[in-house]
Amino acid sequence: MTTSTEFQFTDYQPYDFANRRHIGPSPAEMEEMLKVVGYKSLDAMIDATVPSSIRQKAPLIWGAPMTEREALDTLRETANKNKALVSLIGQGYYGTITPPVIQRNILENPAWYTAYTPYQPEISQGRLEALLNYQTMVCDLTGLDVANASLLDEATAAAEAMAMAERTAKSKAKAFFVDEACHPQTIAVIETRAAPLGWTVIVGNPFTDLDPTEVFGAIFQYPGTHGHCHDFSGLIARLHQTGAIATVAADILALTLLKSPGDMGADIAIGSTQRFGVPVGYGGPHAAYMAVKDAHKRSMPGRLVGVSVDARGNRAYRLSLQTREQHIRREKATSNICTAQVLLAVMASMYAVFHGPKGIKAIAQQVHQKAVLMAKGLEKLGYTVEPETFFDTITVEVGHMQGLILRAAVAEGVNLRKVGTTKIGMSLDERSRPATLEAVWRAFGGTFQVSDFEPGYRLPKDLLRQTNYLEHPIFHMNRAESEMTRYIRRLSDRDLALDRAMIPLGSCTMKLNATAEMLPITWPEFSEIHPFAPADQALGYKQMIDDLSEKLCAVTGYDAISMQPNSGAQGEYAGLLTIRNYHLAKGDTHRTVCLIPTSAHGTNPASAQMAGMTVVPVKAKDNGDVDLDDFRAKAEQYADTLSCCMVTYPSTHGVFEETVREICEITHRHGGQVYLDGANMNAMVGLARPGDIGSDVSHLNLHKTFCIPHGGGGPGMGPIGVKAHLAPYLPGHVETDGRPGAVSAAPYGSPSILPISWSYCLMMGGEGLTQATKVAILNANYIAARLSGAYDVLYKSEAGRVAHECIIDTRPLAESSGVTVDDVAKRLIDCGFHAPTMSWPVAGTLMIEPTESETKAEIDRFCDAMLAIREEARDIEEGRMDKTNNPLKNAPHTVEDLVGEWTRPYSREQACFPPGAFRVDKYWSSVNRVDNVYGDRNLVCTCPPMSEYAEAAE
Amino acid sequence: MTTSTEFQFTDYQPYDFANRRHIGPSPAEMEEMLKVVGYKSLDAMIDATVPSSIRQKAPLIWGAPMTEREALDTLRETANKNKALVSLIGQGYYGTITPPVIQRNILENPAWYTAYTPYQPEISQGRLEALLNYQTMVCDLTGLDVANASLLDEATAAAEAMAMAERTAKSKAKAFFVDEACHPQTIAVIETRAAPLGWTVIVGNPFTDLDPTEVFGAIFQYPGTHGHCHDFSGLIARLHQTGAIATVAADILALTLLKSPGDMGADIAIGSTQRFGVPVGYGGPHAAYMAVKDAHKRSMPGRLVGVSVDARGNRAYRLSLQTREQHIRREKATSNICTAQVLLAVMASMYAVFHGPKGIKAIAQQVHQKAVLMAKGLEKLGYTVEPETFFDTITVEVGHMQGLILRAAVAEGVNLRKVGTTKIGMSLDERSRPATLEAVWRAFGGTFQVSDFEPGYRLPKDLLRQTNYLEHPIFHMNRAESEMTRYIRRLSDRDLALDRAMIPLGSCTMKLNATAEMLPITWPEFSEIHPFAPADQALGYKQMIDDLSEKLCAVTGYDAISMQPNSGAQGEYAGLLTIRNYHLAKGDTHRTVCLIPTSAHGTNPASAQMAGMTVVPVKAKDNGDVDLDDFRAKAEQYADTLSCCMVTYPSTHGVFEETVREICEITHRHGGQVYLDGANMNAMVGLARPGDIGSDVSHLNLHKTFCIPHGGGGPGMGPIGVKAHLAPYLPGHVETDGRPGAVSAAPYGSPSILPISWSYCLMMGGEGLTQATKVAILNANYIAARLSGAYDVLYKSEAGRVAHECIIDTRPLAESSGVTVDDVAKRLIDCGFHAPTMSWPVAGTLMIEPTESETKAEIDRFCDAMLAIREEARDIEEGRMDKTNNPLKNAPHTVEDLVGEWTRPYSREQACFPPGAFRVDKYWSSVNRVDNVYGDRNLVCTCPPMSEYAEAAE
Repeated sequence: MTTSTEFQFTDYQPYDFANRRHIGPSPAEMEEMLKVVGYKSLDAMIDATVPSSIRQKAPLIWGAPMTEREALDTLRETANKNKALVSLIGQGYYGTITPPVIQRNILENPAWYTAYTPYQPEISQGRLEALLNYQTMVCDLTGLDVANASLLDEATAAAEAMAMAERTAKSKAKAFFVDEACHPQTIAVIETRAAPLGWTVIVGNPFTDLDPTEVFGAIFQYPGTHGHCHDFSGLIARLHQTGAIATVAADILALTLLKSPGDMGADIAIGSTQRFGVPVGYGGPHAAYMAVKDAHKRSMPGRLVGVSVDARGNRAYRLSLQTREQHIRREKATSNICTAQVLLAVMASMYAVFHGPKGIKAIAQQVHQKAVLMAKGLEKLGYTVEPETFFDTITVEVGHMQGLILRAAVAEGVNLRKVGTTKIGMSLDERSRPATLEAVWRAFGGTFQVSDFEPGYRLPKDLLRQTNYLEHPIFHMNRAESEMTRYIRRLSDRDLALDRAMIPLGSCTMKLNATAEMLPITWPEFSEIHPFAPADQALGYKQMIDDLSEKLCAVTGYDAISMQPNSGAQGEYAGLLTIRNYHLAKGDTHRTVCLIPTSAHGTNPASAQMAGMTVVPVKAKDNGDVDLDDFRAKAEQYADTLSCCMVTYPSTHGVFEETVREICEITHRHGGQVYLDGANMNAMVGLARPGDIGSDVSHLNLHKTFCIPHGGGGPGMGPIGVKAHLAPYLPGHVETDGRPGAVSAAPYGSPSILPISWSYCLMMGGEGLTQATKVAILNANYIAARLSGAYDVLYKSEAGRVAHECIIDTRPLAESSGVTVDDVAKRLIDCGFHAPTMSWPVAGTLMIEPTESETKAEIDRFCDAMLAIREEARDIEEGRMDKTNNPLKNAPHTVEDLVGEWTRPYSREQACFPPGAFRVDKYWSSVNRVDNVYGDRNLVCTCPPMSEYAEAAE
Repeated sequence: MTTSTEFQFTDYQPYDFANRRHIGPSPAEMEEMLKVVGYKSLDAMIDATVPSSIRQKAPLIWGAPMTEREALDTLRETANKNKALVSLIGQGYYGTITPPVIQRNILENPAWYTAYTPYQPEISQGRLEALLNYQTMVCDLTGLDVANASLLDEATAAAEAMAMAERTAKSKAKAFFVDEACHPQTIAVIETRAAPLGWTVIVGNPFTDLDPTEVFGAIFQYPGTHGHCHDFSGLIARLHQTGAIATVAADILALTLLKSPGDMGADIAIGSTQRFGVPVGYGGPHAAYMAVKDAHKRSMPGRLVGVSVDARGNRAYRLSLQTREQHIRREKATSNICTAQVLLAVMASMYAVFHGPKGIKAIAQQVHQKAVLMAKGLEKLGYTVEPETFFDTITVEVGHMQGLILRAAVAEGVNLRKVGTTKIGMSLDERSRPATLEAVWRAFGGTFQVSDFEPGYRLPKDLLRQTNYLEHPIFHMNRAESEMTRYIRRLSDRDLALDRAMIPLGSCTMKLNATAEMLPITWPEFSEIHPFAPADQALGYKQMIDDLSEKLCAVTGYDAISMQPNSGAQGEYAGLLTIRNYHLAKGDTHRTVCLIPTSAHGTNPASAQMAGMTVVPVKAKDNGDVDLDDFRAKAEQYADTLSCCMVTYPSTHGVFEETVREICEITHRHGGQVYLDGANMNAMVGLARPGDIGSDVSHLNLHKTFCIPHGGGGPGMGPIGVKAHLAPYLPGHVETDGRPGAVSAAPYGSPSILPISWSYCLMMGGEGLTQATKVAILNANYIAARLSGAYDVLYKSEAGRVAHECIIDTRPLAESSGVTVDDVAKRLIDCGFHAPTMSWPVAGTLMIEPTESETKAEIDRFCDAMLAIREEARDIEEGRMDKTNNPLKNAPHTVEDLVGEWTRPYSREQACFPPGAFRVDKYWSSVNRVDNVYGDRNLVCTCPPMSEYAEAAE
C-alpha cells in the first residue's frame, strides 16, 4: 500500500483526491485568498501562524496517496479478509435485517448522514421528528415515561444508569448491585466507571445476593445474558423501600412479548436498539436507549427531543436541554455525555415505523419460535437446555465437548457462544434460518430437519406482556415502500446538511464526508461481523485497525492507540483513566489533581471528575490564552497531588498559543501527565504532533478530523493515542485481552465506521493531510480577513492570525442594535446556512470553522451573507429599520410568512432572498423561529463553562 | 428457488414483499375502496372487469415468493457466478471509473432514477439542465452544432444516422456505405435496419470501396474498431459533392485529443458516452449520442432539450419536440425513437462536469499512453503492432498462437479481443493499470515491467485536435466533491419524482421501484462484465436471463423471449421483424400489410413501416374499441398480403375489449400474425396471457410492468416474447449466435438492469404478481369512481369498468370555463403531483394510471386535488373567478409569485396550498409555466396519432 497501483502519466492528476476532491479551494482560488489574507504563499502564511517551536520536523509521509478507486479496491481486499459467518453469539449483538429502503435512504443518504446535531431546531425538524418517534418507541416498549434520544451503547448506558442512580437515590449507600446475568461487557464498563468514583460494585445473583440496604441502586438484565427471564418486581419494590434505584437492562425486541420494566416498577430501563435494523458492525455504532420514570426525567443524561411551538404558534420540535444541564451542573459531574447516536436511533425508529407493532411482534415471535425449535432439536439429542422458558437465548451443557462443538459449528458456518468451560450459548435472531438450525444441530451431532419438529412457545407465562405499544399513528402508517420512501424524503428535506451547504461550526470540523469513504461501511463483510466473533474471522478488521492506528500514531507522535472510545468525551475520560491507572500502578494514589484552563471545553472537567480527579481551574488571559503564570502557580501549589493537566491545542479560542511546550514541561516537572485535547487536531495534522510537543495522551475526534460524518448528532469516535509509558494502561476488554478498564461495550468502539477514516488517510496520504491542514487554516484566516471591519475577530495570535477557526464578536451588535447572536444565527438560515457555533467558548460570539473542504465560492457566499447581516444591523442602529420588527428578529422566514398577510416594514424579497440565499434552489426552513426557553442559549456543548467548577475546587 | 429459505411461523408475515411493500393499499383500505367501486370483493370486481373469455385458466405460480433478503441473497449468489475480469476487449465498451459521488447521488438516488421523462418541464428543470449539459458536451466534443439528449446505443444511433441520411440526402441513391472498420455490432444493426426499407448496405474500405455517387450516405468509424485513425475530410467532401450525408461514429474520449468530426465536415456524429463513467454492465444501458450540423437539426431523431422562458420571463428548460415530430410525420417513418437514456446521459454529463476539460483530457492522454506502453512491450517481444498511430486500441498479429494467448490472458485475469483467426486486439482504458499491462505481456510471453519502458505518444500527428471544448462555466466548476454533491442535490430537488409523490401517468405504469430491486445493479459482478466477455465468465447473467425469460414466458404464454430490444418501440420493431422474417422464410414475400387500429400508440405504425410493412389503419368505434367490422373487412381486403395486425390490450383507452380473441382469429384465418402490444401488460399479469388469447408476439415494457425505474426518461427495456413458430426468427447477434437480425448493440440489450425485474418476480411470486394486477385495476376503478360526477370517464367496459387506467375528459371544462387540459396539469403541480398523461390517446383528456403501488391515502390526495380543481373551474363557469386570471391559468405558482407583488383576484393561500398540497413539505416548482410553442401539446408520446397514416395508406 505504499505505491500507487495506477498510472500517473500526466501533470494534471484527475484522480488526485486530496487536492481535487477533498480540499475545497482550487490553486487559483487559494492564490486569491492568500492575497486577501496578505501572504505570498500558503507556506508563508502557515509559518506566520503556527509557532515554529511546535512545528514537526519530518513531514508526514506514508507512501503515495491512493485514488478513490485504489482505496475502494484496498477496502474490498481488506473486507474480504473478514468472514461473515452466521452469528448466534448474542451477548447484546444480534442479527437483524436492515430494510433496504432504510439502508439506501438513510444510512447511505448524505442528507441524513452529513447533518449536524440538531442544536438549530429550525433546520433540524426532520431528524427531530424521527428522534421523537424513537423516544416514543422506547417509552412504549419499556413502559416508562421519558426516553432520551439515545446513548452510545448498552454498557455505557448501564454505567450512566448507575451514575444517575447515585445522583438521585435517596439511599446514601455507596455500592451498586449488578446482576451477574448482565452481559460481561456491561459489568466491565460499570466496574470501570465505579472505581474512580469510589463506588463498590457487587456482582451477584439478585435473588440471593442483593441486600437493598447496602446499595444506592441495582441493575438487572432482562432476559439474562444466558437466556433466563425473571420478574424483578419484588426486588424492585424492596429497593424502593430503602430509597435505591432500580434499573433493568432489557432487550428491546423481547419487550414486544414480555412484561415491561415499567410494569415491574423499574426506575430506569436501558438497552441497545441495535437489533432494530442496525447491523452488528463488529460492535458498533448502535444506539443505546435509556428511559426513566417521569420523576427522574431531570436527572437523565443525554439529549431529549421535545415538542414546542414556533413564532407562528405552529408545532416545532427542539432539543430540551434543561435536564442534561441540570445534572451536569452538580458539584460532581458523574456524566460527560455529550452526544447521541442519532443516525442509528433514526434507523431503529424507522424500523419500528416500517414494521409497526404487528410486524415487530411477529418478528419477535418468530425469533422465539426459532429458539424453541433449536431447543427441541438439542433436547432430542439428549442435551439439557436451560432455561426452561426463554425469549431468544438458550444455553446447553456440553461438558468437555465444548471446543469440539464450537469448532464444528464454525465449520458449518455458525458462531456459537462459549459459556464458561462446559457450556454453549446461542441467541436466535431475525436472520436465523432453518438452515442455521440444521447446521447447529449437525455441529451437535444431529441430522434433523426443522420440519421434524413442531414450532411452539416457551415464553415465561407469568411474564407475558399485557400492555399495548406503538399505538401512535406514525407506527400505523401504511406499510407500502412508496409511503416509507416519501416519509423519509420529506423528513430529510426539512433539514439542512452538508449536502446542501457549508456548516461552519467552530470546533465541529464539518468537513467533506466523501462518498468513496462512505461506500464500504454498508458492505456486509464489514457490517455483519459480530464483535465477539473469533479473531481469525476478523482479520480484515485487524488489518484496518492496525494500519489506521499506525497512521494515527504517525500523525500524533504517540506510540499506541485505543479505538475503544465512542466519542470525544469518552476519549477524554478514557485518556484520563489511563493517566489515573498509570499513577496508581506507580503507587501514586494521591495524584488526583487535574489542571484545566477555564477556556477548556466543558467536557474536560466533567471527564476529569468522572476519572476521580479534582479539577483545579487555571485562568485564561484576556486574549483567551492560558495564563501561564497562573498555570505555573497552580502546578506548584498542587505539585504533590498533580495527576495531569488538560489543554486544548490550538486553543478553544482558535489560536496557536506559543506557550504549549512550556505548559507540558511545567506539568511534567511536577510529576503530572499532559492530556492534550484533540478536538482541534484538524489544525495540526502534518504540522505539529501532540506527542512531540510534550503531551502524553490525546483523543482524536474521528468524526471531526478524520471524516466520519456527524450523522445528524452521532455516531462519533474518540480513540486515544498515548505515549509508550501509558500504553499498558489503555482500556482493556473482557473479550479481547481480558483486562479490566473497558470504557465501551465493544473492544474497538464503533469499528464499522473506521473504513471512513482509514480511506481518508489512504486517499490523502501524509502530504494531502498536511495540505488539508494548511488550507483549513487558510480558509479560516480568509474568513477572518473578509469579515474584519464588519465584525471584530476576537482572538488572534500575535501575528494576527487565527488557526482553523475564528471567533467573531456579535456583542457590539446587541448593544448598538439589539441584534443578538441568536438573531444572526437564525438570519443565516434565510441565507441558506447553518449557523456557526454560538456563544462558545465566549457568550455572544460566533465561532466559525470552514474546514479545508469548502471552496472559495461557498465561503464567499457565507461571507456575503454575514456582511449583509451586518448591514441589516446597521439599518437598525441608524434608525432605518425597526428595532423589534426587522429581518433579523423575524428570521428565519418561511413560506408561511410569504403566504400570509405581510405587515412588516421590509419586503418579502428582502426577507427571503438576502445575499447568500440561492434564488431557484433556496433552502426553506420548515418552521419559524422555535420558542426556546431562556437558558438554552449555549447550544454547542452539553457541558457548562469551566467557571462553574472554580467555586467547587477552591 | 421454489421454496422459502426462511421461517414463516406467524400469520402476520412482516416480510411479505408483495402485500406489505409493493402493493399500496392495505387490506382494510382495499375494503373501503371496493365499497366505493361497488363490489364485495376484489375478485368480484375483477370478474366483472376482465372478460372471462380471456382469463387464463391456471394461476400464475412458480414457488414461494422471496423476502427482500432472500432475493438479495439469490442475486448475490447469482452475481458471484459472473467473473469480472479486466477487459481490454473494447469494441465499443470500455472500462471506466464511475465517480463515487455520481454513483451514490445519481445512480443510487431515487430522486433521479424514479423520475419520469421531462414532458412536464416545470417539474423537470433539474434533469433538463443536466441534459443540456450533456448536449453541450456532445456538441463541443464532436464539433457539431446540435446534439440530442441521447439515443439507445451506438449501433442503433448508427442506424438512426443512416435513416436520417436517407431522409435528408439530396442524393436519391438507395445504398448506404459502411466503413468495414465499424464495430461488428454496428454493421449488424445497420444491416438489420436497411433490409426491410430496401436499402443496400455496402461494407468496405472507404478509401478504396466508396463510390459517393452510389450512396445516400456513409458512416466511418473513428478510430476504427481495430484502432486505425483516419482523416475522413476528403471522403466527406466527395460525399457532399453528390448530395450524400456523412456520418462519423466517434469515440467520445478520443475526441478530446483528435480532430473532431465537425472539423472533418461530417454532417452527423454518433457514438457511445459509456466510457464517461457509465459501467459496461454486460452491454447496457448506456447513452449513445448524436450530433448534427445545424442545417440538419430538424431531421434529427430523439429528444432535444432547449432553453425557453417561463411565464415570468425567467429562464426555463424544456424539451423541443418540433424536430422529432417533423420527421415522424413523414409519409414513411424511418424512426420510431420514443425515448432517450436520460439517467445514463445525466451520469455521462456529470462525469464531464466532475472532471472538466483538463481532467477528461488527462484521462484520454493516460489511456493513450497506456496503449503506447502496451505496444512497446509487445514490440519488444517481436510482435508487429498495428496501426502505427492510434488512440487506445492496437491489434497484434499472432498467427496460430491466437487461442493460446487469449487463454493465457484469461488465466492472467484479462480478456483480450479475438480478431479474425490470427490477430488479437486490445483497447486500453481508464481502468487499465500497470499490472494489467504486465499481465498481458506475460500472456504474450514477456516478463517486463512497465518501468522498463518510457511512456510516449503515438497519436496521428495530422489529426491532433486544435479546438477547445467544454468551455462553458459548468465544466469549470470547482472540482471539490462538496460542490459536486450540492450541485447534484440542487438539480434533483427541482424535480418531482416517485420518491415524493404518485406519478399517475396513464400508459406509463409508474409503479414502485423497490430499493431491494435496485441495490444489485451497482454490484461490480453485474456492472463490470464486458458484453463480449467469454460466456463462462457470465454464468450469473445467463442464469438470471434464463430464469427471467422462463418467468416472462409463464406470464405471457409465449415460448421464447429475446432480451435484446432496449425500449418498447424497439420491441415492437423487433417483433415485427420477427414476423417479417417468418413470412420471408416461408417464401411469403408479399405479406407486408399490417393492420393497426387508429386507437393504437403512434409507435406502432412507425415500427411497422420500419419493418417494411404497409400500414393499413382500422377504425375505432366511438367507445374507443376496435371496429370489428372494419377489422374484418380490412383483413379480408388484404388477405393475400396480410403480414400481421397490431393490437393493444387492454386497449389504449384503458378498457378490456371483449373482441380481442376474435381479432386474433380473423388475423390468423387470413394468414397473418398477431402482434399484441404489451404496453398495458400491467393489467394482465396473472389474469390473462397474450399467448393464450391468440397473439404470436408481444413486447414487454420492463420499465413499466416489471419495475425498472424510468430514470428520468430512460433506460427502458422492451424484450419480446414469441410463440414457438417464431422463435427461430428472433434477433440474432454477431457475438453470440452469429445470426443476423440484431436490433441492439448488445446481445441482451441492457442486461445490467435486469436484476430489477428479476428480483421483482422473485419477491412477488406468481400470486403476488396476480394480486398486483388486481389492485392496479382496483386503484384505477376507485379513481374513476371518485372522480365521476366531477369529470366524465371516457371509456368503460360494458360493465362500467375501466382496466388499470382511466381517461377523464377535460374538454367540457374548456368549453364551459376555458380551462384546458394543460391548466389542469399545471395546477396539479401546485397540489404536489405530476400530471397524468395529457391528450393521449384523445386530445383534451387526461389518462390516469395509479398502479398497484399507490396507497389509498395517496390516491385520495390526488382525487381531492382533482375534485378541487373541478370546483375552481366551476368558479370560473359561474363567474366567481376571472376567466384568464385564475389559479388554473396561473399555475404552477412559485416562490417568485409569493415574493413579488400580488395583484391576483385570489389569495396566495389559495394559490399555493390547494387540496393535495403538503403544508410543511410542499413541493415547489422551480419555474412558472414554461412557454411552450403551440403544437407541443401532445406531450406523452413521440409518435403522432394513427390518423396521420390513414391518408398515406388509402
